[in-house]
Formats: sequence, structure tokens, C-alpha cells
Amino acid sequence: MFELEGKREELLEKIEEYIARKRYADLRDLLLPMEAADIAALCGELDEKVALVFRLLPKEQAAEVFVELDSDQQELLIQSFSNTELKEVLDELYLDDTVDIVEEMPANVVKRILKHSDPEMRKSINEILKYPDDSTGSIMTTEFVDLKEDMTVEAALKRIRRTGPDKETINVCYVIDDGRHLIGLLSIRTLLLAEDDDVIGDIMERNFISVQTLDDQETTARALGKYDFLALPVVDQENRLVGIVTVDDAMDVLQEEVTEDIEKMAAIVPTDKPYLKTGIFETFKARIPWLLLLMISATFTGQIISSFENALAAFTVLTAYIPMLMDTGGNCGSQASVTVIRGISLNEIEFSDLFRVIWKEMRVGLTCGIVLSAANFVKLMLIDRMLFHNPMVTPTVALVVCGTLVFTVFCAKLVGCTLPLLAKKIGFDPAVMASPFITTIVDAISLLIYFQFATVILGI
Amino acid sequence: MFELEGKREELLEKIEEYIARKRYADLRDLLLPMEAADIAALCGELDEKVALVFRLLPKEQAAEVFVELDSDQQELLIQSFSNTELKEVLDELYLDDTVDIVEEMPANVVKRILKHSDPEMRKSINEILKYPDDSTGSIMTTEFVDLKEDMTVEAALKRIRRTGPDKETINVCYVIDDGRHLIGLLSIRTLLLAEDDDVIGDIMERNFISVQTLDDQETTARALGKYDFLALPVVDQENRLVGIVTVDDAMDVLQEEVTEDIEKMAAIVPTDKPYLKTGIFETFKARIPWLLLLMISATFTGQIISSFENALAAFTVLTAYIPMLMDTGGNCGSQASVTVIRGISLNEIEFSDLFRVIWKEMRVGLTCGIVLSAANFVKLMLIDRMLFHNPMVTPTVALVVCGTLVFTVFCAKLVGCTLPLLAKKIGFDPAVMASPFITTIVDAISLLIYFQFATVILGI
Repeated sequence: MFELEGKREELLEKIEEYIARKRYADLRDLLLPMEAADIAALCGELDEKVALVFRLLPKEQAAEVFVELDSDQQELLIQSFSNTELKEVLDELYLDDTVDIVEEMPANVVKRILKHSDPEMRKSINEILKYPDDSTGSIMTTEFVDLKEDMTVEAALKRIRRTGPDKETINVCYVIDDGRHLIGLLSIRTLLLAEDDDVIGDIMERNFISVQTLDDQETTARALGKYDFLALPVVDQENRLVGIVTVDDAMDVLQEEVTEDIEKMAAIVPTDKPYLKTGIFETFKARIPWLLLLMISATFTGQIISSFENALAAFTVLTAYIPMLMDTGGNCGSQASVTVIRGISLNEIEFSDLFRVIWKEMRVGLTCGIVLSAANFVKLMLIDRMLFHNPMVTPTVALVVCGTLVFTVFCAKLVGCTLPLLAKKIGFDPAVMASPFITTIVDAISLLIYFQFATVILGI
Repeated sequence: MFELEGKREELLEKIEEYIARKRYADLRDLLLPMEAADIAALCGELDEKVALVFRLLPKEQAAEVFVELDSDQQELLIQSFSNTELKEVLDELYLDDTVDIVEEMPANVVKRILKHSDPEMRKSINEILKYPDDSTGSIMTTEFVDLKEDMTVEAALKRIRRTGPDKETINVCYVIDDGRHLIGLLSIRTLLLAEDDDVIGDIMERNFISVQTLDDQETTARALGKYDFLALPVVDQENRLVGIVTVDDAMDVLQEEVTEDIEKMAAIVPTDKPYLKTGIFETFKARIPWLLLLMISATFTGQIISSFENALAAFTVLTAYIPMLMDTGGNCGSQASVTVIRGISLNEIEFSDLFRVIWKEMRVGLTCGIVLSAANFVKLMLIDRMLFHNPMVTPTVALVVCGTLVFTVFCAKLVGCTLPLLAKKIGFDPAVMASPFITTIVDAISLLIYFQFATVILGI
């Protein structure tokens, strides 16, 4: 009863077979009990047969599936629709879904969609399209239930029964005054549990949180999660109610934003398509900029090594520990940076916490550094010197390596925790300051410390 | 009207002032209009004054704040409660919140909580506590509205009005038969839009998705997001309805799981406390295991360098490019692995896609490798040779470096995309196969390729 997983191949085969044998009634019976998201996932593999599947479904379910399809397939379907079919689908869609679709379509398809939407819908679409891409306005819907303060519960329920079918949610209703200013809200639960002759103004919640059309959509989505709301009202600058954001859209936004953050942390330019749907060139374009930049930054580490060439020639054994020092430094730095970046995006850490964070990382860094050094010293002496009989690994060399390790770990933790907070402060995205970027910096630092130690202790 | 951000310091000062001057009425007026989550966030900084703030709030709001506090403060408060106070708070809490609290408390506090819960609540708590930590059963609530198939809409609404106040949600109601088997569900919207004498069995949705108590809670949370549901019914192995999972809990689960994934990808052992609340030793413990393991794995890279010591002594210039090759390889590997790991956790990529993924990464890897190599060749010739007058950087040396780069990038992409999928297949957590782990492997590979090329081309 739960999800496609495992049954996917089997179902696809069945669908292909039904189509091949023109057993459309059977196909319809197979699809009818399925969730729209699952049908859409299957359609992803059906190519041009999608149109056929689509026409078998009842209008409402067809529209739900349509919303879940990816934009290439939506475009394909719209191209294949007659005008009547297009109008029918559009009539079934919620406003915010229509806007999402319009945003992804090429100009000629958009024109056709707008032409076949009813005038009120067209106006709303155009309004929402005006909001910037990452704003709350761009994900809101204008299909909400509004009530007046002086209505009775009975009148309110009547209004909900009349207008409800076209609204995205009736679980929360919004109370506005004559100037459309938001003055309160009311859950359907409160309404149902109240007496018929109670007045809305008396039972509505006057303390509520609202967001503005231009607020960042991630902030809005996080607020919904934080306060456990099912919807948040969106107001304009004069506090007039213009729309609502529902929890399902908030979940989508959060998922996208997390993926974006993770991609940025891995030095990838974010794209919004699923991996397997992205072309080679697109993936290449998303990955090459940071690779190039970071490769060129690594020039500095090369320069540092070059300038200590003589020291390395005298003590060739030192070269063998460069990768270990760089990797450990990089790992320590990314542990700190990733923790802080996640803390920032969950609003657990702010710039004003900088010194608390630094103080904490200093102590953690020192502890980690000492433990790693001690372990490394034992390893150098027991394994490299005694087991592998490498006479070059003297206790003095081990001291240089382990001393460097303590300082590298310490610096890596400091750099790792500071950069994301500084980035945030100057308005950069903290996620960009993650592992790869910090690794490059920490590499240079660790090599400088290494050669400094070597020069002093080994007297090169 | 929106969130604390920016006003936090100011509010805290005001609260401290009111408390110092014993202006409790003003303090109450300040807090009353605020959301529970915000008050709880402020309480985090108030230490033992929390109890005072808590007692000023009306019962219902106080309980809401209590749920949002972190577990240390909840414990502190419970210790300070009289038995009557404890009972009052417990009566206001939803079952799933109580269970969350019980899970975090030490044994003596749990005993006290159970003692003061009413018998039915106690039984439910004990039942939910039995489910494993990551299971759906452990996050569900048993406070849902259940209806019978033969009820009329009028009777159903009456039942909701009667039992609704104690239920976590009334937005979706569940229809069960006499054996408590789940046979359908019904949104409050459908119920409100129906006629009074319609029969539930005729208007309920018979095609629905349910989850089982032992299903993984992340899978359940993702399903809620995927299908845009407000709640999912949870059934036992005999399809008897035992609880529901609501969207707000699903959002919390997803947020925790994402944080865990991100931590694992950065070679951190996940903890569930916010960064600033975690002690130095705890943070140390979370970070040191992987650091140690990865440091020791880096021994291999050291061994590889040692065994090519003579080659490096003859061509010391080769050492200077080791960091660049290692870092670029590491970055390429983590780009691929992180993309695939995220794809797996969003159910976009499955093990059966292995060959599609490999084929894609091979092509992306080759393209990236060639472009990076070309850029690097230009840089070696123009900057290192001409600008820095390094005569050691001959075109042949550049050829070795750039040739290695192409192969390293190619291998890094392959390893990066393959390991997470293999990990998933054998039941490991793919996230653990991220950057640090793959970097260590890619380092060894890139050095082997490097020295192989050097030996062949430079004839060492």
C-alpha cells in the first residue's frame, strides 16, 4: 500500500503491455487507485505515451498528475492538448501550481496558457509572476478563505461551504477588515467547535505571525516549520492580505534549499533539476567553475613547496607526510565549517555568537590536535620506523610532523568556523565557504607550518 | 510581526528588567502575544528564571512553550513543579509531545511524569515508547479522529465536535471497521462540503496510503512531503489503525535527518543537540573517530610517496604539484559523491541506476578532466615557467601533470559516484561515503597515476 519502491519495474512493464495490447480499461483500473505523485513518477519513463495515459484518467486526477510531472513532459503534453483539453486542465489546477508551470514554460506555451485561463486567474498569475524568484510572493497562492469580523460562525461555515471547493486549504481561514487588512485568523477546528451564533471577531486569534510578499521564501518556509503552522498569511507593505503559503509548498522549498546548500558545500553551482534528468553539459557547467578556481588557488601550495625545495631534497622523508597533513587539516576544517553552516541555516548560530563559536572551536581543535598527534607519533615510531624499517623517521622528524599536526588542526578549526560567519556578515552565502574552499586555505597554512617547524627543529 | 531576528537582545533586556523590578503584569503582557517557539527561544537565555516566566503564562500557552524548550530546561522545570503543576501541564500536552519529553528525561523524572499522567495517557505513552528510535511508531500520535463507515455526515460532525478538542488534528479523519482496520479516510473539507445526510462510506476516500509502525521515520516523512499530505495513518501488521503522523512532526524529522546526513558527509558522528548547546567533550567525541580513521588511512598515500622517493629526488619539481592534484581529485570526487548521496536520499537515484550514473559521470569526468588539464597546461607554461622563470617546468613535466589530472578527475568521478550506491546496496549509510572518505581513496589513486606517468614519460 506504500510507495512505488520495488514495484516500479513491474508496474512499468504492465503499463507498457496494456498500451501495446490497447487494454485501456485495464490500464485505467490499474492507475485509478494510485497517488498522483506515483503516476507522475511512472510517466517519467513513458515518453510520448504520457498523453495516452493522461487522457485515460478522470479530469481531477489527470490535473493532479499533470502538476507532478517534470516540466519537459508538461510542455510535451500542453503541445499535444486541444484548446478544450488545455482549458479543462487549467480549470482543475490550483493557482500556485499554474504559476509554477508557467514559470518553466517557453514563451509560446505561456501565451497559450494565459489565453485559456479565465480572466481572474490570468490576472492572479500575472501578479504572482511579478514577484522575484526567491520571494515569498512567488510561492504563495491567492486562493484562501477570507471571513469578516462581524460574521457569525454559521455564516462563516456557509461561506466556506460555498467558496471552499476552489480554495487550496480551508484548514485556516483569514479575517480581514473592509480595507482587506489582515486582523485575525481562525482554524477550521475552532470554527467547528464554536457555537453557531458565536461571532468571528470574538473567537478569532488576534496574535498571529504573517510574512510579507518580499520576504525570502526560505525564511517563510522555516517559520512554518518552526511554529508548526499549516499555512502562513502573506501581506503587502500596508498589511493587506494578498495570499497564503501552505505547508506543502514550504516543504518543497526547504527540500530545494537544502539540496542547494549541500551542492554549494560540495563546490557545485546549484541546479534545480534532478540528477538523472540533467544533461552532461549542464552537469559539467555546474561543476567546472569551482574546480577551476580551486585548482588555480592550489598554485599557492605549489609555490610554498617550491620555495622549500632544498629542505625537501635534504629530508625527502618529509614529503611522505604532506598528504596526511593536508587531508587531516582539510577534514578538521570541513567538520567545523559544515557544522557552523548548518547552524546558521537553522538559525541556531548568528554572527553575534562569533566569539563563543571561536572559543569553542579553539578548545575542540586543541583536544583533537593533541589526540591526533599522539596517535600519529605512536604510528610513526611503531609502524613507519620499526615495522617498515625506515631509518629516516627519527624521533625528531616525528616531532616535526606531530607538532605541525597540532597547529594545523587548531588553525583548520578556527578558519573553518570563522569564514562562514564572516561570509554571512558581509552578505555572502555561508555554504560557499565549505570544505573545498577551506581545504585550499588550510593546505597552504599546514604547509607553511610544516616547513617552519622543519626549518627550526631539523635546522635545515 | 515576524520572528525574533534582530529583536532578540532587546527583548531579553526588557524581560530581565521586568523580572528585576518585579513588573510581572508588564512581563505577561509582553509575552502573551508571542508565539510559543519564540518564547522558548528567549527562555534558552534566562536560566533559572524560566520557572518564573513559565508561571506567568496562561496554562495552554505555558504548555506550548514547555514543548518547545530544550530538554535540559524541561528537566529543570519539571523538578521545580509541584505535583499539581506537573499534572496541569501534562493534561495540556499532546501525546506525541509527551513521549518526546519522556524519551529525553532521566529515569526518576520519567517515573514522576508517568505517575501524574492519567491512566489512558500512561498506557499510550508506554506503547509508543516500545517502538524503535527511528521507526514511524516512535513519532506517531494516537490522538486522531476515527469514524465509522455507516455514520452520516451529521453524526460524524457531532463526533468531531465532541472529541475534537483532544485530538492533534481534525483536518483528516480516519474511517475504521469494527475490527479497527483502516478502510478509508476523509478530509474535514469533504465532510464540510457534503450534505448532512450523506453517509461516510459513500464519500470517504478508499484509495489511500498508509505506513506501518516499523517503517523508517524518514521514509514516512518523505512520503508526507511527496504526496502533500497533512497526516499519514499508521497501521500495524494486521492493517489496524494505531496512530497518525502529522506534517509538523514530519518536518522536524526531515530537518534532523538532513542535519545528520550533512554531518556524516563532513565525517562527523551525528549528535542531536544544537551546536552551541553541545559540550567541548561531546563535540570532540563526535569528530575524533573519523579524523583518526582517515589520518591512518592517509598512511597509504605516504607509503606511495616513500616508494617513489628517488623519482621525486630527481625531479623535485614534481612535489610542488602534489597538493593541486590531490585537492582537485578530492573536489571532483566529492562533487560526484555528494550529488549521488543527495539523489539517493531524495529517492531520485536507486541502485538499479548504477550504470546510468557511471556512464554519466564518465562523460562529465572526461569533459571536466580535459578542460582542467588544458587550463592547467596554460598556467604551467605561462605562469610557472615564463612568469616565475622556473626552468624545471618543461613541457614534458607539464604533460605528466596534465595527463595525471585527466585520469585523476576521471577516476575521482567514478569512485565518487559508485561508492555511495554500493554502500546503499550492502545496507551501509551512503552519506558516510562522502568527501573525506573518497578524498582519501582518490589521493592514493592520483599519486599512483602521477608516479606511473612520471616513470614512463620522464623515464625515471
